[in-house]
Amino acid sequence: MTPTTYTSRVFALETMDVPGATETILRGGRHLLSLLPQAFEGVGRIGVLGWGPQGRAQALNLRDSLAGTDIRVTVGLRPGSRSAADARAHGFTEEDGTLGDWLAVAADSDLVILLIADAALAAHHEEIFAVLEPGAAIGLSHGFLLGHLRETGGDFPPGHPVIAVCPKGMGDSVRRLYQQGAEVNGAGINSSFAVHADPDGRAVDLALGWSVALGSPYTFRTTLDSEYLSDIVGERAILLGAVHGIVESLYGRHRLAGDDEVTAYERSCENVTGPIARIISRAGLRAVRESLDAAGRDVFDRAYTATYPPAREIVAEIYDEVADGTELRSVILAERRLGAGPMTEIGGSPMWSAGDRVRARRAGRELPVDPFTAGVFVATMLAQVDEFAERGHPWSEIVNESVIEAVDSLLPYMHARDVAHMVDNCSRTARLGARRWGPRFQAAYEQIAYPAAEGPADASLVAAFDAHPVHEALAAAAKLRPSVDIAVV
Amino acid sequence: MTPTTYTSRVFALETMDVPGATETILRGGRHLLSLLPQAFEGVGRIGVLGWGPQGRAQALNLRDSLAGTDIRVTVGLRPGSRSAADARAHGFTEEDGTLGDWLAVAADSDLVILLIADAALAAHHEEIFAVLEPGAAIGLSHGFLLGHLRETGGDFPPGHPVIAVCPKGMGDSVRRLYQQGAEVNGAGINSSFAVHADPDGRAVDLALGWSVALGSPYTFRTTLDSEYLSDIVGERAILLGAVHGIVESLYGRHRLAGDDEVTAYERSCENVTGPIARIISRAGLRAVRESLDAAGRDVFDRAYTATYPPAREIVAEIYDEVADGTELRSVILAERRLGAGPMTEIGGSPMWSAGDRVRARRAGRELPVDPFTAGVFVATMLAQVDEFAERGHPWSEIVNESVIEAVDSLLPYMHARDVAHMVDNCSRTARLGARRWGPRFQAAYEQIAYPAAEGPADASLVAAFDAHPVHEALAAAAKLRPSVDIAVV
Repeated sequence: MTPTTYTSRVFALETMDVPGATETILRGGRHLLSLLPQAFEGVGRIGVLGWGPQGRAQALNLRDSLAGTDIRVTVGLRPGSRSAADARAHGFTEEDGTLGDWLAVAADSDLVILLIADAALAAHHEEIFAVLEPGAAIGLSHGFLLGHLRETGGDFPPGHPVIAVCPKGMGDSVRRLYQQGAEVNGAGINSSFAVHADPDGRAVDLALGWSVALGSPYTFRTTLDSEYLSDIVGERAILLGAVHGIVESLYGRHRLAGDDEVTAYERSCENVTGPIARIISRAGLRAVRESLDAAGRDVFDRAYTATYPPAREIVAEIYDEVADGTELRSVILAERRLGAGPMTEIGGSPMWSAGDRVRARRAGRELPVDPFTAGVFVATMLAQVDEFAERGHPWSEIVNESVIEAVDSLLPYMHARDVAHMVDNCSRTARLGARRWGPRFQAAYEQIAYPAAEGPADASLVAAFDAHPVHEALAAAAKLRPSVDIAVV
Repeated sequence: MTPTTYTSRVFALETMDVPGATETILRGGRHLLSLLPQAFEGVGRIGVLGWGPQGRAQALNLRDSLAGTDIRVTVGLRPGSRSAADARAHGFTEEDGTLGDWLAVAADSDLVILLIADAALAAHHEEIFAVLEPGAAIGLSHGFLLGHLRETGGDFPPGHPVIAVCPKGMGDSVRRLYQQGAEVNGAGINSSFAVHADPDGRAVDLALGWSVALGSPYTFRTTLDSEYLSDIVGERAILLGAVHGIVESLYGRHRLAGDDEVTAYERSCENVTGPIARIISRAGLRAVRESLDAAGRDVFDRAYTATYPPAREIVAEIYDEVADGTELRSVILAERRLGAGPMTEIGGSPMWSAGDRVRARRAGRELPVDPFTAGVFVATMLAQVDEFAERGHPWSEIVNESVIEAVDSLLPYMHARDVAHMVDNCSRTARLGARRWGPRFQAAYEQIAYPAAEGPADASLVAAFDAHPVHEALAAAAKLRPSVDIAVV
């Protein structure tokens, strides 16, 4: 089990009841910014390495939150990085010393936040570690590096605090919701934090300060290991891979049943990213089923109970392979094979051409929830929830990685831009994972789940869904989140 | 490059010209059986461990071939094995000392042939090695154990010849064609052989004798490594995994275009296992395209050139992961997860219900080659051929693992029983691989290849197909094979 309680010398903490446990959480907000200098004691210079979606969002949020303090935020980039112009356009410049070569910045920081791409981290972490000042803190937003070090027999350099603050959403949403938080205090993306090494006792408050500065509505504790596993598995399952497999298989199913392209798209992809995501976000998972009439609930139940078993099998397989290091090896092999070359994009498949037409006719139409689609989607979500619960993940992590991140961050983006755009624009590791596992969900659903859904629902599985502890955990998390829908577009 | 030349003190060898090289081959036949005692010098007792499809076929062929000699063939089974009754029914009995406990048989043999399931081999090889008499030869028909030993840091025990004779076809075909070889001399399944350890110089002739006794029409040399890679990759690609992905995607495509279930099945699955396999078997790969009229060739070309690139990407990915050990780890993880429990079967997917109706109306109908199906299938085959060639496999191995084994062994079985039956009845390792990778081919073809096939063909890819060295290599191999179609049913 992951330790989920902690204390702080700086912030007032709260407890949250989750099924079978109590978690310590820090509720965030702009009113806490005045405590940041205390939390960041000993840190006068923060170096953010990387200007990808996360790097940019975090550098901007940190700078805004620390405005008026003596704490300087500098961005470090690789030589020849194509991101330099955009960083300068956002006010990080060589002239005022807030933009520089990544190794130079790493050598000149008290907290170095590593937000470069996984492959680059794998290739260059040793150079970065070598230039750190004694006692400088290493910050991560992702457990990948830990997995890589394990696989290769490496380790973090001793004597440095190693902390992680991991926003549970895409970089772009981390920035947007922070900005919306100027109007609605507390708007933001939840984060987990982890302490991997704490040589001088500063680690917890440093992490909490970082999380508050990012604008996290609530911060919960996990371990780097747990974060890594839930994150890498999640992006291969309900967050990205399975979503793609689900919508492709459902689109095909509706087309085969005679629907035109637009109707098929509305009953599959549009339904998931639109009404289903919205209902879950506002009212939880049971509300999706409860929004249906009796006939709809029967369809939901049959789809749910036919989908859950194969979904659970695949999530378990993904989890085993991520935990075992096997999945990581395939990512490294793929990077080697691709070089810096492009991956074939999925956006050319037939269903996506319908997307533009569907979006064009969206205004003013209230799309009803498709019961079959809802059953398939919710079953897949529950399969991931159950696998994570069985493996001992803390409930905050389970609900964030399996539900909240999907309905509050990823699906709204997909709704605005379409799933293919998402899959083709996520991190390399996420993209590779989605294209490995999306087809597994698609094939299993087409060949096993949908034929089985012709038969009667399994009442015990439906009852288990209704009584599931996840509803309680989700409700507890919802209390901490202001109801702000992210302004995407 | 794999060494492909060798000498024998017992058998007369021939040379076969292949693109850019010469391979030594042994042409088999019943007339060579009299040489077996020489080839098996020092071996009076052969122990075949396992009574699965390969175990049974090999034990029976060996016993028949060695009838009249002093060389005894004994079958060794695990305690409580459910195969004992069938072995006894085939004349291997405890009473006459030709059936026994596997460790006892291993301890009492001069050549121990390990034909138990991969998972059992992984779990028990050390016990088996421990009971061997000094100098007893270890025989394998599959490189799996080598891969496993590499992954786990183990090794074969020193001082024992380690040889492999690997029939390039399913166990059942190894027995059937051998039996047909009583009428048509030389009918059988080709085999590769490899020598992994040769402490006393006997290894090559021992392997050749074993191969002749199995009835191999021609025997070519490879390494255990090369065999392992081509075999494990092949079953995930053109032999099983890709075939499943191809027929599911084509079936869906035809259904979406308005075909009824039976027509869609005939244009996809039935086409691959029937006329396409038959033409390739009798007349080679180019003959498939040449059998089409001008309009058909245009469709073939567009399907071929759209399919080849994504097919090649996936085969390269499979190869990397098999070579790296990653795929093997996933097999081990899956075995652990499944225990001895059943895998969900694929045979329930909608397309298979059409199979019975299609088979019922087969008699007297000459099904024409579907040009699109042919282009997709041949492109996938060529993708595997090219990947193997690039990785340095000998041409005999390339054509056997990529073409001959498919069209002469696997596809005829699928024609008689259907692809799902095959996928659900192969070795565990093959089944796991097929269900991992089949969906990858399916998704890539649906989302990337078939949309691209709407556009014009890539003339340079078509020209490369036409001038490909594989045609020469296939023709050379065909000269060694009597034209006997396996009598399946």
